[in-house]
Amino acid sequence: MHNFIYEIKDFELDNDALLLGETLFHNANGYIGVRANFEEGYPDGFKTVRGMYINGFYDFSEMKQAEKLFGLVEEKQTMLNVADTQGIQLTIGGEDFSMFTGEVLESSRWLDMAGGFTARRVLWKSPHGKEVEIVIRRMTAFTRLALFIIDFQVTVKNSDAKISFISGHKGDVMNYFDPSDPRIAGESFQHIAVEKVEIWADSSFITSKTVKSQLMCCSGVKHSLSGKPETALIQSVGGATATFSMDVEKDQPVRLVKVTAITDSIRCANVRKACALELANATSVPIETLYAEQAQYLADCWKRCELNIDGDDDLNLALRFNMYQLIQSVTKDEYGNIAAKGLSGEGYEGHYFWDTEMYIQPFFVLTMPEFCKKLIAMRYKTLGFAKENARILGHTRGALFPWRTIMGSECSGHYPSGTAQYHINGDIAYAIVAYYLATGDFDFIVSTGAELLFEIARLWLDVGNFYKGKFQINDVTGPDEYTCIVNNNYYTNALAKYSLYWAAKFYGLLKESGKLAELAEKTGITQHEIGDFIKASEAMNLPYDEELGINPQDDSFLQKKAWNFADTPKENYPLLLHYHPLHLFRYQVCKQADTVMAHFILEDYQSQETIRKSFAFYEKITTHDSSLSACIFSIVASRLGFAEKASEYFGDSAKLDLFNTHKNTKDGIHTANMGGNYMAIVYGFAGLRLKEDGISFTPILPAKWSGYEFSVSYRGSVIEVKVSGGQCTFALVNGEKQSMRVFGKLIDLGLGQPQSILMQ
Amino acid sequence: MHNFIYEIKDFELDNDALLLGETLFHNANGYIGVRANFEEGYPDGFKTVRGMYINGFYDFSEMKQAEKLFGLVEEKQTMLNVADTQGIQLTIGGEDFSMFTGEVLESSRWLDMAGGFTARRVLWKSPHGKEVEIVIRRMTAFTRLALFIIDFQVTVKNSDAKISFISGHKGDVMNYFDPSDPRIAGESFQHIAVEKVEIWADSSFITSKTVKSQLMCCSGVKHSLSGKPETALIQSVGGATATFSMDVEKDQPVRLVKVTAITDSIRCANVRKACALELANATSVPIETLYAEQAQYLADCWKRCELNIDGDDDLNLALRFNMYQLIQSVTKDEYGNIAAKGLSGEGYEGHYFWDTEMYIQPFFVLTMPEFCKKLIAMRYKTLGFAKENARILGHTRGALFPWRTIMGSECSGHYPSGTAQYHINGDIAYAIVAYYLATGDFDFIVSTGAELLFEIARLWLDVGNFYKGKFQINDVTGPDEYTCIVNNNYYTNALAKYSLYWAAKFYGLLKESGKLAELAEKTGITQHEIGDFIKASEAMNLPYDEELGINPQDDSFLQKKAWNFADTPKENYPLLLHYHPLHLFRYQVCKQADTVMAHFILEDYQSQETIRKSFAFYEKITTHDSSLSACIFSIVASRLGFAEKASEYFGDSAKLDLFNTHKNTKDGIHTANMGGNYMAIVYGFAGLRLKEDGISFTPILPAKWSGYEFSVSYRGSVIEVKVSGGQCTFALVNGEKQSMRVFGKLIDLGLGQPQSILMQ
Repeated sequence: MHNFIYEIKDFELDNDALLLGETLFHNANGYIGVRANFEEGYPDGFKTVRGMYINGFYDFSEMKQAEKLFGLVEEKQTMLNVADTQGIQLTIGGEDFSMFTGEVLESSRWLDMAGGFTARRVLWKSPHGKEVEIVIRRMTAFTRLALFIIDFQVTVKNSDAKISFISGHKGDVMNYFDPSDPRIAGESFQHIAVEKVEIWADSSFITSKTVKSQLMCCSGVKHSLSGKPETALIQSVGGATATFSMDVEKDQPVRLVKVTAITDSIRCANVRKACALELANATSVPIETLYAEQAQYLADCWKRCELNIDGDDDLNLALRFNMYQLIQSVTKDEYGNIAAKGLSGEGYEGHYFWDTEMYIQPFFVLTMPEFCKKLIAMRYKTLGFAKENARILGHTRGALFPWRTIMGSECSGHYPSGTAQYHINGDIAYAIVAYYLATGDFDFIVSTGAELLFEIARLWLDVGNFYKGKFQINDVTGPDEYTCIVNNNYYTNALAKYSLYWAAKFYGLLKESGKLAELAEKTGITQHEIGDFIKASEAMNLPYDEELGINPQDDSFLQKKAWNFADTPKENYPLLLHYHPLHLFRYQVCKQADTVMAHFILEDYQSQETIRKSFAFYEKITTHDSSLSACIFSIVASRLGFAEKASEYFGDSAKLDLFNTHKNTKDGIHTANMGGNYMAIVYGFAGLRLKEDGISFTPILPAKWSGYEFSVSYRGSVIEVKVSGGQCTFALVNGEKQSMRVFGKLIDLGLGQPQSILMQ
Repeated sequence: MHNFIYEIKDFELDNDALLLGETLFHNANGYIGVRANFEEGYPDGFKTVRGMYINGFYDFSEMKQAEKLFGLVEEKQTMLNVADTQGIQLTIGGEDFSMFTGEVLESSRWLDMAGGFTARRVLWKSPHGKEVEIVIRRMTAFTRLALFIIDFQVTVKNSDAKISFISGHKGDVMNYFDPSDPRIAGESFQHIAVEKVEIWADSSFITSKTVKSQLMCCSGVKHSLSGKPETALIQSVGGATATFSMDVEKDQPVRLVKVTAITDSIRCANVRKACALELANATSVPIETLYAEQAQYLADCWKRCELNIDGDDDLNLALRFNMYQLIQSVTKDEYGNIAAKGLSGEGYEGHYFWDTEMYIQPFFVLTMPEFCKKLIAMRYKTLGFAKENARILGHTRGALFPWRTIMGSECSGHYPSGTAQYHINGDIAYAIVAYYLATGDFDFIVSTGAELLFEIARLWLDVGNFYKGKFQINDVTGPDEYTCIVNNNYYTNALAKYSLYWAAKFYGLLKESGKLAELAEKTGITQHEIGDFIKASEAMNLPYDEELGINPQDDSFLQKKAWNFADTPKENYPLLLHYHPLHLFRYQVCKQADTVMAHFILEDYQSQETIRKSFAFYEKITTHDSSLSACIFSIVASRLGFAEKASEYFGDSAKLDLFNTHKNTKDGIHTANMGGNYMAIVYGFAGLRLKEDGISFTPILPAKWSGYEFSVSYRGSVIEVKVSGGQCTFALVNGEKQSMRVFGKLIDLGLGQPQSILMQ
């Protein structure tokens, strides 16, 4: 039986622990995210990142460049903190509830990943001796995305008492800022202004507008309280406050349910009307119905992303926590995406990066591929911005996707490690192909995928050039940001080769299926251009060094100096916080997997021998200063049969956020790392690959595990994989029969016909 | 007879012309600079850059980086506008003088380069019919650097009248800003605050302090007026106003002399006391004495930098204007330098660049080498900052001079085209060696030059590394900012080779002369380190392409795409204002001379054949978007014997500022261009070179000139060079006998023994 509860008992109340808790226990559903701030707040002087966010909802803010140069980004987007509806101050017999006064007799916080809610339970003794049990459940609903619910239950244990709730609805909010940390916003700015506050019988509505992007959002709040309280709804500047007072008997629980509905103008025409409707619908059913819907939704999810490591319950819990975070962070429509921090905090200002395509989609494509479709559709929606971005960069054709963005235009301040990462284009192409290979959903290629591939391929043709018979891509930056603006980055060129190949391939498939005409008309793509794609793909320069027998990260990587790791003190990591970029550029030192990552995603471009040598070479010089690195090394170690090394790289990284090992989980979860851990097991240890010739596995089992099992979706079927006892077993649990390769051997899997194969 | 007057008659009064005039007619003496603002100001709504500047006097201001990365510059220096003492409002019979009211019957402005002053003469008819002649002379004194003088003469031509002067002394000033132009400050900031205003019998003093750098300056103003006026000195917030009224008779001139003295705390301990002393000294002698001192100073200068093109008076005037600007812009002490715009405006915020060493010192080293000594001494004063900068960039030894600075620390906002220009180190080394070669001043090498060379050489060792037997310098930017962060930039590596060689050479000379001990003790330099210098110098990688027979600008320059010049519209130049840096990086297109410049300064590193081919190659792809480029192409064309091509490149660039061909002379003069024009003649057409084996000439004569002549100082002697009538003649006009090479042939030149050699 799996454990779906992540719980902390007797939790600490120091400020760092509280900030961390705000992230770990946040609620999200892919549309809205609410940090786990205490309803009653913290004492004065405590820092808090108090926030509620909408996926894809942003304002513009100035990005000041130290020197003005043509095309540098001067305006970025920031994910906004919207109306605060978390505030509830409970008063018992005149005493305000606070965990910082009186005595906390018992406390716990938990996340219920089956129920889809978080909870806080406190047994509290007030300064004047009242004993009160408080249980607060919070939920953002998966089935009704607009909803955030606080379910607040109070029981006075040792006397009758008069209690009251003062419940806030505050429109006058700002984003968090910290000028000393480069990873979050450096200055504050009033991004959102309240347009209207309305009080109705039992609800309040705040309609707000963003300052520059001129987007609207509306939040509605409605309370329901057991018993018959006196009620007052008071309007104040920028918000509303509801007060409820009542006499309660000893041991008789009182329950306040506060329902918030959020709507925005990106998704609906009349935010106020839509908000009222959402609120009315939600409050017309008992809260138990909402809980039941939520549990049902998650039961379905968990069935689809079954994953278990035999005998390591801590690890299983961490992996489940990570998958839960991905499920609650990922957009459910094409108006959002999945931010580097999900909807859990303001780190990286809510921007979407390549993390989406290379670290998160690999999870969804095998479990809930319909989310990949949304993520790709979101890129498609922003294709116009990507074309505009390409023009700014001087390209006369094609599209260049932004390195970081919310609504589609580039938000990178430092182009050498931002906009120059052209591989984002290849990453998107790769994710589209992966979706296609996993699902066979050709209709989506016709409607969306092929056009994206064509524009991406066009960009590669425009950025590169033939030189001495090879197709070169100069002055770009690979994933490793410790070496920027280089020529023929192996990772970039390999993905460019792949994108160009698949653009041509899709063209052929469209033609064959008679579905080309419309797209050819729309995009102007011709057979001649496709010929150019193929030529460039085939002539792509993939740097190879004869002497070392490896793929150098770029043309000049091997002529750089060796980094002196022996004399680099521990406290100097991550290096980017202690060395000037130009200094890092001059050394053979990598922040993260780059060429090694290419060896994972495009393993057929090199021999096993080259990959082995490359792996050994880069292993020595990679600092893993990025949380996206170790999982890739783990996967390639698995691929090379280094089970123990793979296991070491996998290590504790699944627990990065739970244990706050990077010390910045307060700013939000690390969604890419979470996806990466999944990948390290399924693509790593189990050796799953999706290629043109189908799905394949080459499982290994690290010594410290007795076995592992997981389910994946493939072309509409669900396949269960178990590795243990010296063999691996594959079973089709639903859907049509599927062929697959295991250790290179083709097997056909039908319902009720599991097949076991000896480990190699 | 040479023309020393640059005059504009009936000058225009539109705003652009006035802004241009503010620069062209500014006064400076290397310590202070005053823009030529009208004493009475312009009408409301006119833009003006009204300023008085002190060389080396600055405040810090924030430089905001779009993304925070380790070591990026976050604080820059800005040359400050100090107290405004230009204001004088003349009133005649109640009517305020203004060229924008009444009628201007005659007007002219001129710069007298023999007298060392500027002047404005206006014959003005007031709205009520008074005819007034106004002649205003302005001077910053070369012999008393603290002084700025306005000599204001008024004659009422057609009646008696009551006239008055209201003369201002204003401490409450700010710098000019324009958020739309990247080349000047983007925002305003109160950099200087008045500490004290004092009014004495006939003078006023304003003592001010800068906000962040906490520097002090003091300005004192004293008036003297012919006749016996009523006088009032009125103090107001942040300044003082003096009013003089008197009755004057028709045709009787009245003369107001307003003397300003400026002192600063960089140069003196008590600015107030020093200012009073300067003012008292200046006003204790008749103004005619000050004029005479000024003329005497300039007569000496002009003797030393004689330069004449036979029969092209316009060009001679332009060249003289340029030399005058260099003389008045260059610091006279080691607390300043020479800014890209001199002391004539606020472009580039008063920063010093490599322009000093590579474009301006080549003029002074042959004419007034004592100024080179000051310029080198200024670099030496800031050696500590250069070492600190090297540490920020991760270098464990040596010094890295800043790409742009005032007080010594780096002010580059965009490091790829700023801090990455490590060649600044080589440029400084080159200028030191040039000074030594021209003067033989070994004492200065012992006291200053050798230490600089050692620290520069150490930096090269630290930045570079051996790879396959060659010494590599990776990830730097050469002079051509259209290709940034490259490996083995030819120009940089050539200068690194030269610096390392000369560091070793100076070490040897110091050792031989018994003067090594102290410096070895101070710097810790050892014979072993010198051995490393020599090894690196000899193994320096100077990229050479066998196929083309040229030196590629860097390792990967030839694999880049060819720029499509045919389809680039004229209005897209300069390219940097129309293309993203990453786009430019990907093309074989140069902003300015880079490898070609190396072929000028270090011509012996390559064969004539290679230089010829390189020149032809780079000529096709260089846009000359920088004003520092054409002169270098001209010089190398001369070197290759392409007299007409050299002549074309020389073209009208001597008139850049006089004709405002770059449209930004309002922000200040282009000092490097001015030096470059001198170089194009003396180093270009006359082929002068300073090398270890002495001075040499290989003159050519472009067809459009009948001849030219100039004088240069060499090792304490003055040599006159004349080219005309098919021969060149060399004469020693004073000093000891000197040997030189002409067309490779050694000749000895004694006093009274001119030698003529047939042109080749």
